[in-house]
Amino acid sequence: MAKQAVITPQADDFPAWYQDVVARAELAEGGPARGTMVIRPWGYAIWELMQAEMDRRIKATGVQNAYFPLFIPMSFLEKEKEHVEGFSPELAVVTHGGGEQLAEPLVVRPTSETVVNHLFAKWIQSHRDLPLLLNQWANVVRWELRPRVFLRTTEFLWQEGHTAHATYDEAQAEALQMLEVYRAFMEDVLGVAVVTGEKSARERFAGADRTYTTEALMRDGKALQMGTSHNLGHNFARAFDIQYLDSAGVRRHVATTSWGTSTRMLGGVIMSHGDDHGLRLPPAIAPHQVVLLPLSEGDAATATRKLAEELSGTGVRAHVDDRGHLSFGRRSIDWELKGVPVRVELGEREVDAGVATVVRRDTREKVQVPIDGAARAARDLLDVIQRGLHAESLAFRESRTTPVTDFADFKERIGGGGLFLAGWDGTDETEAAIADGTGATIRCIVDAPPFPRVETDLVTGGPAKHTVLIARAY
Amino acid sequence: MAKQAVITPQADDFPAWYQDVVARAELAEGGPARGTMVIRPWGYAIWELMQAEMDRRIKATGVQNAYFPLFIPMSFLEKEKEHVEGFSPELAVVTHGGGEQLAEPLVVRPTSETVVNHLFAKWIQSHRDLPLLLNQWANVVRWELRPRVFLRTTEFLWQEGHTAHATYDEAQAEALQMLEVYRAFMEDVLGVAVVTGEKSARERFAGADRTYTTEALMRDGKALQMGTSHNLGHNFARAFDIQYLDSAGVRRHVATTSWGTSTRMLGGVIMSHGDDHGLRLPPAIAPHQVVLLPLSEGDAATATRKLAEELSGTGVRAHVDDRGHLSFGRRSIDWELKGVPVRVELGEREVDAGVATVVRRDTREKVQVPIDGAARAARDLLDVIQRGLHAESLAFRESRTTPVTDFADFKERIGGGGLFLAGWDGTDETEAAIADGTGATIRCIVDAPPFPRVETDLVTGGPAKHTVLIARAY
Repeated sequence: MAKQAVITPQADDFPAWYQDVVARAELAEGGPARGTMVIRPWGYAIWELMQAEMDRRIKATGVQNAYFPLFIPMSFLEKEKEHVEGFSPELAVVTHGGGEQLAEPLVVRPTSETVVNHLFAKWIQSHRDLPLLLNQWANVVRWELRPRVFLRTTEFLWQEGHTAHATYDEAQAEALQMLEVYRAFMEDVLGVAVVTGEKSARERFAGADRTYTTEALMRDGKALQMGTSHNLGHNFARAFDIQYLDSAGVRRHVATTSWGTSTRMLGGVIMSHGDDHGLRLPPAIAPHQVVLLPLSEGDAATATRKLAEELSGTGVRAHVDDRGHLSFGRRSIDWELKGVPVRVELGEREVDAGVATVVRRDTREKVQVPIDGAARAARDLLDVIQRGLHAESLAFRESRTTPVTDFADFKERIGGGGLFLAGWDGTDETEAAIADGTGATIRCIVDAPPFPRVETDLVTGGPAKHTVLIARAY
Repeated sequence: MAKQAVITPQADDFPAWYQDVVARAELAEGGPARGTMVIRPWGYAIWELMQAEMDRRIKATGVQNAYFPLFIPMSFLEKEKEHVEGFSPELAVVTHGGGEQLAEPLVVRPTSETVVNHLFAKWIQSHRDLPLLLNQWANVVRWELRPRVFLRTTEFLWQEGHTAHATYDEAQAEALQMLEVYRAFMEDVLGVAVVTGEKSARERFAGADRTYTTEALMRDGKALQMGTSHNLGHNFARAFDIQYLDSAGVRRHVATTSWGTSTRMLGGVIMSHGDDHGLRLPPAIAPHQVVLLPLSEGDAATATRKLAEELSGTGVRAHVDDRGHLSFGRRSIDWELKGVPVRVELGEREVDAGVATVVRRDTREKVQVPIDGAARAARDLLDVIQRGLHAESLAFRESRTTPVTDFADFKERIGGGGLFLAGWDGTDETEAAIADGTGATIRCIVDAPPFPRVETDLVTGGPAKHTVLIARAY
C-alpha cells in the first residue's frame, strides 16, 4: 500500500501535514490571485452543511438574513476612528470602474459594520424598530501576505451578524447569546472543544467595547480563534448617528453588536480531528456519512445498494462507491483521506457468509456484522463517533492546559505548545512582556469555572486582576 | 384607507410602480456605492427560497457546488479574445491591496469562466475526470451606469454553472439540459411563463458558440431575460489549454458550458405578478405562505394561534401577526404589499360565530369558512394560487404575442409593447434594421412548436431563415 507516501505524518511536520490533507482530501487550493482560495466540491459540501446548521441556529434566536453591498465608500470606514485604523493595512481598493477612474475609491468589504450601520440609521426611528437583528452570508477581503488555506486567506466566506438594541445591556446580552450559539455549534456540530472568554483590550475588534472569543486547541498545541462576538456599545451608533425615539419620546443612540464565523472553522475541524491517515469528519458535517464499497460486481454490488437504500431511508447520507477503474484499496484510502466517518465493505465471500465489514474512521476499527444488521450498526456508529471526536478534543485540550505561576518556567515551556493558565494584572506592560520573545498571546480572560482563579500575575508576581489562557496561535 | 397613496398605479407609470413595490414591500434599496443593492430581510427570504429550490434541481442533475475566487488577474480575461472585449467596459478593477499598488491589477469577477477554466486545466487529465460538473453561488460585479434594483445592479447575486465534457455534443446536451432546468424552475416555482430559444450571434455571451435564453414578458409589455445557458464549445478549452487523454490515449480538448440565473429573477417575479396593491408571491417562494391576523386579544388570538400551529404542522409556512401597536387595516395592507398568498382574519364576532375570513392575495377574494376547516381551506388555496399565477402569466404572454409580417406595421405597434413573432433571414443587416429606431431586439429564435413558422423576413420580405420573437426588453 502506498498509504505512507500520501501525507506527511503530523509529528514530522504539522504544517506540511495540514497542506497534504487539504490537497489530498481535495478540500481546497490556492487561487491564481495571491492569497485567494478555491474551495473544491468536497470542502464546499462540508461548508454547506456547517452553514445550514449555523444558519438554523442563528435564525432560531430571531435573527433574519439580509445582504449588504461588497463595495463600501472609503469615507464610510473613516467614520469610526479605531475601525479604520484597524482595517486600513488589510484593505483591497477598487479605483477604476466601467473604464474610468472613480472619484472616490471603493473598499472591498473587510467586514460590514460601516455599511450596515449606515442603513440602520435609515431604518431605525422608533423603539418599535428595536431590536433589529440581521445576519448576512458573504465573502469578505482582508489582504493577506502569508496566506494559508482556510486559516488566513485574502478572501474568505463567513456570516456576519449585526444587531441594534435600545440599551447597552441588551447589546451586551446579545453579544453573549451569540457567543453561546457559537460555542454550542462548535462543540455539538463540529465536535471541537472550545473555551469562551473576553479578549484583552489589545486583542479587541477595531471599534468594539468588548470582544468575546471561542478558542480551540489544535493538535500541534497552537490555539485557533474560531469565532468572535462584539459588543460595539455606542461607538458605531454615534459615528453613523443611529438614534431612536424611546417610549417617552426621548431621542437616544442605539447600542450595536456584531459577530462572525467563517470558513476558518474548516481549518479548525481539520487540525482538531485529522490524523496521519487524513481528515476525520464529525458525522454532522460529513457530506457522506457512510460510504459503501462493493469489492466486486454481482451479489456484493446488489447487497451494497440495498444497504445504501436502507440507510438513506433513515436519513443517513449514504454513498455507494463502485468506481470500477479504481482498486478496492485505492477507493478505501480515498474515503479515509476524505474523513468519511463509516465505511461498509462487502465482497463476494462476505455476502456468501452473510456478513459485512464495518470500519470506523475515528478509531480505524473494523468489525464484521451480519448484513441484516449492517445498516443499523453503521447508523448507530454515527452518534458514537460524533460524541467520541468531541470527547477526544476535550480530553486533548484538558491534558494540554497547564497552570503556570513562574514566568521563567512559562517561557521554557511555551515552545512545547498548549494552553497556559495564568494570572494577569490587566496592564498593557505585562501583556506585552508575555508576547515578547515567546510569540504567545493572551487568548482570552477566563474568570469563571471550570478554570480555577490564579491569584498572582505571571510576569510581576504581583496581584492578578484576571485569570487568562495564554498560547501561541494561528 | 390610505391604500391608494401607497403605490403608483401600474397604468400611470410602470417604473414608478416598480420602485414603489420594491420600497414598500421592503424588498431592497440602493446601497451607498453607486449601483449597489441592499437586499432587505423580506427580499432576501424570497431569494433564499428560490436559491434552495434551484440548488436542489441543479444538484439533481449531478452537479456539485464549489467556490472560486472573487479576484481574477487581468491577464486571465485577456486569454479569450471575445470574452475580454465583451466584459471590458463593465469591469471593476482593484489596483491597491494591503496598502500597496499591485503589480498586476485584479478584476472583480464579472463572471468566472476564466478562473474556472484555469482550474479545469489543472484538474482534468483523463476521460475519467469527465464530465466535470460544477456550480457556484456567488456575487459578481458588472459596472452599471443606469442601475435598477434587481434588474441591473453593479453587484448582484447569482449561481453560475461551469461544466467540461469529452465532446462538443455532450456540452451541447448539457447547455440544453440546464436551459430546461431553468424553464421548469421559472414556470413551476416562480409561476412565470417563459419562452426558451437560442440567441442571435449578436446577442450571444462573449466567448460562447451558442447561447440559449429564457425570456418572460413583464406586465408593461417589455421582455426580461431571466437566465441563460451557453455552449462554449472549445473556445475556453483552447484559451486555457484544457486537454484530456481519451480512452484510446489521444489528447483532446474538452468542450465547456456555463449557465447562470441571478437575483434578476426577483425583478421578474415582481413585474410578472405584481398589481396595484403590491407584490403577489407564488406560494413556493413566499417566506410566509399564510399570515394569520387576530383582530383582538383573547379568544380570537387563541384561535389564531391554534390555526397557525395546525398549518405549521402540515408544512405550511404560517405566521401570526399580532402587533398590537398597528391597526388591523395597516397590518392587512402590509401583507398585501408584501405579497403573502393567503391571509386568515379572525375577530371576536367571528370566533363567536365559529367562522374565519380567508383572503386570497391573487384575486383579493374573501370567503368565510368554519374555523374547523380554515387551515385546510388556506392550505388548499396555496396550490390553486401557485397554478393560477402561472396560468395568468401564460395567458398574458399569449394575448400579447402578435405575429407580424409587415415592417411598417411592426414599427407602429412596437410602442405598445408585447412580443412580436416574425421571420428573420439570419443576417446582421436585418437584425440591425429591427433595432434601429424601435429599441427592440430579437429576444430569441423559436424554430419549434408551439410557435408557427413565419416564412418571410420582417424587414426585407425575402425568405426567412428563422422564426424569432422581437420585443423591447429590460
